[in-house]
Amino acid sequence: MSVLVVGSVALDSVETPFGVRENLLGGSATYFAAAASLLTDVSVVGVIGEDFPAQELAFLRERGVSLDGLERKQGRTFRWKGKYGFDLNSPETLDTQLNVFADFDPRLNERQREAERLFLGNIDPVLQIRVLDQVRKPALICADTMNYWISSKRETLLRLLPRLDVLLINDGEVRQLAGEANVVKAGRAALRMGARAVVVKRGEYGALLMTADHSFYAPAFPVADVVDPTGAGDSFAGGFVGLLDRLDAHEPDMLRQATVMGSTVASFTVEQFSLDRLRSLDLAQVEARFGEFGRLTAFAGLQLTRGAIPLRACTAL
Amino acid sequence: MSVLVVGSVALDSVETPFGVRENLLGGSATYFAAAASLLTDVSVVGVIGEDFPAQELAFLRERGVSLDGLERKQGRTFRWKGKYGFDLNSPETLDTQLNVFADFDPRLNERQREAERLFLGNIDPVLQIRVLDQVRKPALICADTMNYWISSKRETLLRLLPRLDVLLINDGEVRQLAGEANVVKAGRAALRMGARAVVVKRGEYGALLMTADHSFYAPAFPVADVVDPTGAGDSFAGGFVGLLDRLDAHEPDMLRQATVMGSTVASFTVEQFSLDRLRSLDLAQVEARFGEFGRLTAFAGLQLTRGAIPLRACTAL
Repeated sequence: MSVLVVGSVALDSVETPFGVRENLLGGSATYFAAAASLLTDVSVVGVIGEDFPAQELAFLRERGVSLDGLERKQGRTFRWKGKYGFDLNSPETLDTQLNVFADFDPRLNERQREAERLFLGNIDPVLQIRVLDQVRKPALICADTMNYWISSKRETLLRLLPRLDVLLINDGEVRQLAGEANVVKAGRAALRMGARAVVVKRGEYGALLMTADHSFYAPAFPVADVVDPTGAGDSFAGGFVGLLDRLDAHEPDMLRQATVMGSTVASFTVEQFSLDRLRSLDLAQVEARFGEFGRLTAFAGLQLTRGAIPLRACTAL
Repeated sequence: MSVLVVGSVALDSVETPFGVRENLLGGSATYFAAAASLLTDVSVVGVIGEDFPAQELAFLRERGVSLDGLERKQGRTFRWKGKYGFDLNSPETLDTQLNVFADFDPRLNERQREAERLFLGNIDPVLQIRVLDQVRKPALICADTMNYWISSKRETLLRLLPRLDVLLINDGEVRQLAGEANVVKAGRAALRMGARAVVVKRGEYGALLMTADHSFYAPAFPVADVVDPTGAGDSFAGGFVGLLDRLDAHEPDMLRQATVMGSTVASFTVEQFSLDRLRSLDLAQVEARFGEFGRLTAFAGLQLTRGAIPLRACTAL
């Protein structure tokens, strides 16, 4: 059991209707590792600058996350600044500073090259492929991407897709990738581009899992107090890949479980700024909400005449 | 078993990315009745003008819908004209002509006053209350409303809400009603306003059912070919109320079933323009898709160690 994540470790400045925060711990690899480490062993590949407060990552070490692959370089850390409106569904990016990320050239050590599962966070697909090429025999390869790479590095991305077991991608991004407004058709198009499975993340509207012959649709756990949606997608991915790694399995039923796990973890992430909720989260809380999720979404098979309603909702998978 | 619906019977002109159609059969009562009549006995209260092609409603009569309460008056039928963009989630209203609806004064006959279940379609809450006052002992009172009434007839609407068993309302409308961006909080606020249950319809993103001590969240059935979303909400309501009437039951588990039934019927409605898909729909097709819905959304309880996955996903309700 081991997951390798490559992605950003960042300092974020975030404005939501509930407050403004500066220099928050952020980054795709950070959120992913905080989530996945609740379930399995995680190793991070990334880069930080001299200004990065490394003690901020102590909680990841305490969770057993390996930060050996986190390089510290001269210069400033990658920074992102964004603002969310009242709908909280997608941020306006106010500023992106690549800084030390600009010439990031990930080199995996021997142990990292043996990783069983890989999450290629939302970075330049050139780098995603460079990392993928260094891993010897991954049992599962998952990746995220974003609008910027879909438009600026489309050819590279199209070379990556056939190598992916699971593409985890936002609603709007899969529509952009496919040039298709309907999400079902867009997901199918992404499958035709070569990914074995696609998980379309729809924010507060849930997640849609599609393979060539299987679909699963989970709503998002309804959260009354969404404070900061940053990192929801990456912690979704952490829960998703983390559970599959823990269970060492990828069958359709397991992908369903992993999708719900991703949604469950993400529903915690958004309750506080930055990784604050993930810091204090433990697996028992995750298990409890996963169970609540089941009760929230279960329904019995259709009966058209009045009779006893089964006490349990059982639907054949 | 009997459902009474009051609402518009209209002629619509609709533009979607898939075509432009004029003088289509439309209206909240029409969509509702077409859906509910798959499941139970329905009686329509409404008004049409001299220009209305009454033969268009023959399919409702064939389904057993009583149109005795459909008054024909001098003048033109209520008309709505709208346009949907590529996201297909909410139309831009280009024109609304009340016509004979302007001085509609619904009078129920003796049989209609005995209706067991009532759906107050999206019309002036003054009229909704006037109809409600005429029904003797309804076992279930459901209503819809819209942004226009929320802003222009708020006081009347607030008098109606405590008399409702179920408020069926759009995502954006419940936020407007509550003055609250978060949908969970907005739903709770609507419950505090007096409705015993709230069903928040979220278009392609599903439906959220809330009571004081119970929540249920169903995604929408993913439809690849959405042609015209008009009437999705009203046919949702028709499936919802129709099933509850057929089963003569309102327990939480039944409300779940009814919510999925509403989503199922609505997923057919959007596949063609106007009521075209509802015309050809039969209960066997609805049952099949309801079952598919179950398979699409079922997941097993969480297991954190590798072992046999149960063949059936059973979640305690």
